[in-house]
Amino acid sequence: MTTPLAPGSTIGILGGGQLGRMLSVAASRLGFKTHIFEPSANPPAADVAAKVTTASYEDADTLRAFAETVDVITYEFENIPTSSLDLLESLRPIHPNREALRISQDRLTEKTFLAELGLSTAPFANVESEVDMTAAVAEIGTPSIMKTRRFGYDGKGQSRLKSAEDAAQALADMQGAPAVLEGFVNFSCEISVIAARSADGQVSAFDPGENVHRDGILHTTTVPAKVPARLLTDAVLMAGRILNALDYVGVLGVEFFVTPQGLVINEIAPRVHNSGHWTQNGCTCCQFEQHIRAVAGWPLGDGNRHSDVVMENLIGDDMDRLPELMADPACALHLYGKADVKPGRKMAHVNRIVSG
Amino acid sequence: MTTPLAPGSTIGILGGGQLGRMLSVAASRLGFKTHIFEPSANPPAADVAAKVTTASYEDADTLRAFAETVDVITYEFENIPTSSLDLLESLRPIHPNREALRISQDRLTEKTFLAELGLSTAPFANVESEVDMTAAVAEIGTPSIMKTRRFGYDGKGQSRLKSAEDAAQALADMQGAPAVLEGFVNFSCEISVIAARSADGQVSAFDPGENVHRDGILHTTTVPAKVPARLLTDAVLMAGRILNALDYVGVLGVEFFVTPQGLVINEIAPRVHNSGHWTQNGCTCCQFEQHIRAVAGWPLGDGNRHSDVVMENLIGDDMDRLPELMADPACALHLYGKADVKPGRKMAHVNRIVSG
Repeated sequence: MTTPLAPGSTIGILGGGQLGRMLSVAASRLGFKTHIFEPSANPPAADVAAKVTTASYEDADTLRAFAETVDVITYEFENIPTSSLDLLESLRPIHPNREALRISQDRLTEKTFLAELGLSTAPFANVESEVDMTAAVAEIGTPSIMKTRRFGYDGKGQSRLKSAEDAAQALADMQGAPAVLEGFVNFSCEISVIAARSADGQVSAFDPGENVHRDGILHTTTVPAKVPARLLTDAVLMAGRILNALDYVGVLGVEFFVTPQGLVINEIAPRVHNSGHWTQNGCTCCQFEQHIRAVAGWPLGDGNRHSDVVMENLIGDDMDRLPELMADPACALHLYGKADVKPGRKMAHVNRIVSG
Repeated sequence: MTTPLAPGSTIGILGGGQLGRMLSVAASRLGFKTHIFEPSANPPAADVAAKVTTASYEDADTLRAFAETVDVITYEFENIPTSSLDLLESLRPIHPNREALRISQDRLTEKTFLAELGLSTAPFANVESEVDMTAAVAEIGTPSIMKTRRFGYDGKGQSRLKSAEDAAQALADMQGAPAVLEGFVNFSCEISVIAARSADGQVSAFDPGENVHRDGILHTTTVPAKVPARLLTDAVLMAGRILNALDYVGVLGVEFFVTPQGLVINEIAPRVHNSGHWTQNGCTCCQFEQHIRAVAGWPLGDGNRHSDVVMENLIGDDMDRLPELMADPACALHLYGKADVKPGRKMAHVNRIVSG
């Protein structure tokens, strides 16, 4: 048995955005302090953290000083430089582990890993050159989508191919970055599973949610998903297979396309996930607490759903709707404390309780 | 209509204990920063607050500097010196208001106020001298209980009279402090109501909970209370009458004795209350968020109960039970981040979900 981290210990969190903010709040519930490491000034998590370090992920001295103040390290964000992780890992335990991060940082590595586990993904091909591109279009066909292998999120670093004529433009859009060409998946909807694995290998999953995107950004997650029960079970089992294969500790988000042939994995995220925010008002133990429990070596909490929820992201000037939302008793609001409203910026989310 | 405080604003909180800590977390959910004012170093709320000031409540310069950094002031604790409140009130709005605080700071004033509202209390008499004491014992009889008029909490500042022979000792126990002698109330159980009133006069109450004390400190609160529905309605109506009479803004705790003659008010607390901690896992909007909403001029949230809960305080070495409690999926833990375990010290609470 793992020895649980004692209350009063400090959890280091790489990244101080809204995920770090909500992780920090969950950590406080279990008696932990948090220390946030974040390159930008005044990040959302700073308002609810015991300590904040503002420095670049490349600043080795500051990373070392940070590590020395914490008992365990986790992250809200997967695009952390490898050299920084090497340094941190030499000083303190990092959960989820380096292997999970390595795999999810690169779309090609991730899809190869999933395929080797026997899990379905969109057809994919590696593209590093014009020659690769020609071969990839021949193999994958169109419509298809080019994505940078690394650093893509919320639809960034992507280019669509309606036909083979778009190939040159799509390659140019990658600006020389290694990329994958992904085949078009004919799906009826997208669902995701937020699953957790403890240090002792206990696995638990929240009910799958149904996701709707707008402009490449998650718009709503609805729980329960209106998808045949058999597919929901498949989704949970597939998430569990990934967790065990990675000897994973923490919360993992897995996005699936629902197709006539069953589930196809879109991508995995080695962290708490926007599509799991509904758990804050749908479950006794939310995804943030579940992650902190796992990272701290505690047993997992109760992730059973007590209420049906529609989570909606409030993006940019969606915040103009705040007066109406704050007066709606069905709406549980979660604001991120960001000073500036910008188009496309996630400012808050609302969990609308649709039954109890 | 009141203009709601804008997200990004700062709420000043007097007192940095566990109530301040949980208020601070609730404030973050609504996009507010908090600034804690607390005399002792490293208070529980400091881990989750944007700013902390460590100074005495008598330090006028520091109080003034504190007030100038915040948009509105509230408190977790009612025993704040009157002169400090006068100063703060001249600089920023304080909710709940001075009148609520004045009344609840003094048991005699409080009981007189409740009696004038037509609400039942234990029989009481003012005691400032031996002459008063003799008259009080003659009027109230025994068994009865002496309590200091001010600064009592968790059973402190109290002395029991089994018979008239205990009168001299009880008076001596008050150490010269003004006191009241309260008659014995023959009650079957204690319940409490946590109620809220918004700046616009909207009133909402959480379901009444049934309280069990041990050694003068709250041990458990069980919701729903096993008390006739008529009495639960009475309790909510009485709490509402108090809120309206005080033009109150914020959350108020009201403790009642359940007697064969109906409800008798034990005391009121002009703040979030230990017997309302169950709302964190029983309601969409907990007492802490409800208080922040009211103080910020927002509409009240949804305080309907979605789960039955037994809240238990973990006091002193109750913390030895942590390994068992963290592994029990029915238990939602809330730790206060206090470094030292001391006998009688509230360290944490657990909300046990008994149905969903």
